[in-house]
Amino acid sequence: MTTEELVAQIHKKKSFLCIGLDVDLNKVPKHLLTEEDPIFAFNKVIIDATHHLAVAYKPNTAFYEAYGIKGWKALEKTIQYLNKNHPEIFTIADAKRGDIGNTSSMYAKAFFEDLGFDSVTTAPYMGKDSIEPFLNFKDKHTILLALTSNKGAFDFQTRKIDGKEVYKTVIEISKTWENSQNLMYVVGATKASYLKDIRKLVPNNFLLVPGVGAQGGSLREVCKYGLSSNIGLLINSSRGIIYAGNNKDFAQAARSAAKELQTQMQEILDAL
Amino acid sequence: MTTEELVAQIHKKKSFLCIGLDVDLNKVPKHLLTEEDPIFAFNKVIIDATHHLAVAYKPNTAFYEAYGIKGWKALEKTIQYLNKNHPEIFTIADAKRGDIGNTSSMYAKAFFEDLGFDSVTTAPYMGKDSIEPFLNFKDKHTILLALTSNKGAFDFQTRKIDGKEVYKTVIEISKTWENSQNLMYVVGATKASYLKDIRKLVPNNFLLVPGVGAQGGSLREVCKYGLSSNIGLLINSSRGIIYAGNNKDFAQAARSAAKELQTQMQEILDAL
Repeated sequence: MTTEELVAQIHKKKSFLCIGLDVDLNKVPKHLLTEEDPIFAFNKVIIDATHHLAVAYKPNTAFYEAYGIKGWKALEKTIQYLNKNHPEIFTIADAKRGDIGNTSSMYAKAFFEDLGFDSVTTAPYMGKDSIEPFLNFKDKHTILLALTSNKGAFDFQTRKIDGKEVYKTVIEISKTWENSQNLMYVVGATKASYLKDIRKLVPNNFLLVPGVGAQGGSLREVCKYGLSSNIGLLINSSRGIIYAGNNKDFAQAARSAAKELQTQMQEILDAL
Repeated sequence: MTTEELVAQIHKKKSFLCIGLDVDLNKVPKHLLTEEDPIFAFNKVIIDATHHLAVAYKPNTAFYEAYGIKGWKALEKTIQYLNKNHPEIFTIADAKRGDIGNTSSMYAKAFFEDLGFDSVTTAPYMGKDSIEPFLNFKDKHTILLALTSNKGAFDFQTRKIDGKEVYKTVIEISKTWENSQNLMYVVGATKASYLKDIRKLVPNNFLLVPGVGAQGGSLREVCKYGLSSNIGLLINSSRGIIYAGNNKDFAQAARSAAKELQTQMQEILDAL
């Protein structure tokens, strides 16, 4: 998917919502556990209930790997269901991968070609040759961790290299890599004011912002500092939407939670 | 597996060799491609030919994910084969994972409990709460990326935070985390002299050293600076062993390549 197609979808749906499909079988409604594939059954209901309100879905691969082969089958079915029924939706494999060059190529192939995701999240620690294999894919997007939403972000990311924070150094250096136009960045919503500085470094790149909702970030704060001329934001909510309810009406509860965020986004977009 | 059991195995086999099972179907001998599961078939032959010369095996998960469900089945079969037939061998899931706390817990469960690996490699960028879920597992080991063997290591890892290299900062801070006795570190062999400084920071922790062989590192150099009182080194070779041959006698070729490294290791151990 091109960035232009993503932006067009945002304007059409009046939404820049991304829904995180982090399926934990301890948290899904009990009646789904008798299904042959309860993970996919859960995702299908969530997608059916919310696809008109969201522009992106983001399964975190950890939740699928934790169920072994069954989990990978559920991940395959989920991405296939999205690509077949909602090809306009932007898909993110939240995998946080990164390895030496020939190995990163294998990851890129797995997520972009075999599974057919539009994008994958990557970790910057191993540098340029660990990320460029992902950037080589045309109309695919590599979402690099910059500033994450967890407490551990302060262990290294906000420390300074030659007077400049590590996360800013990561962004600046990554801009020099080949095909850097295919880069997006993860920036946690728990530190919305940081977005102001980040927008100076990358005025146009999309930012994937986790941490709105369950992790305490404010949507209006994020938009105040993070919106760009092409919107440039994907706001993720996972638990706040998919576990809004946990009995037979969980689909309606998820739709309501998504609708609440989408309505706020519509107000923000209409006011631009 | 406890560290003491790993050390005992090293003394028994006179080896601290780790063999990387990075199976690329474009590189395995052609006659295996007609097998039902050519990846596992390849691994089984390599393990059967080399298990007396190596103390650890390290499948890199990228190479398995690249083959989807089939790849994960091959990974499962490989770890089950190792755990059943060679329970004394130390197993490493080279996955380079790391995510927010509840998500890292899912990864830890996947690799330690479901698959039954003794250890997993992790990326430090997201800090303490992304790694501690792995450290919580008793007699399991978390191998943190410190200084990697690729060119991109110089993009961030060797830059300085408050006058100290990022990789040293990572090691120092990680030592303060709960259950840090379960930490090992990845340190690339292409920069053997760096090991001297690293040993000052972590005199006893095991170091997993990739980059000997195909990536050009020297075994003697690594040992000169990296050996500790409990050996403390696992030297990995992947391509140099598993692709030493690529026709019907590939098992013998792999065994010879492994034997060559093990013989050098034996000389080094005997001279201690």
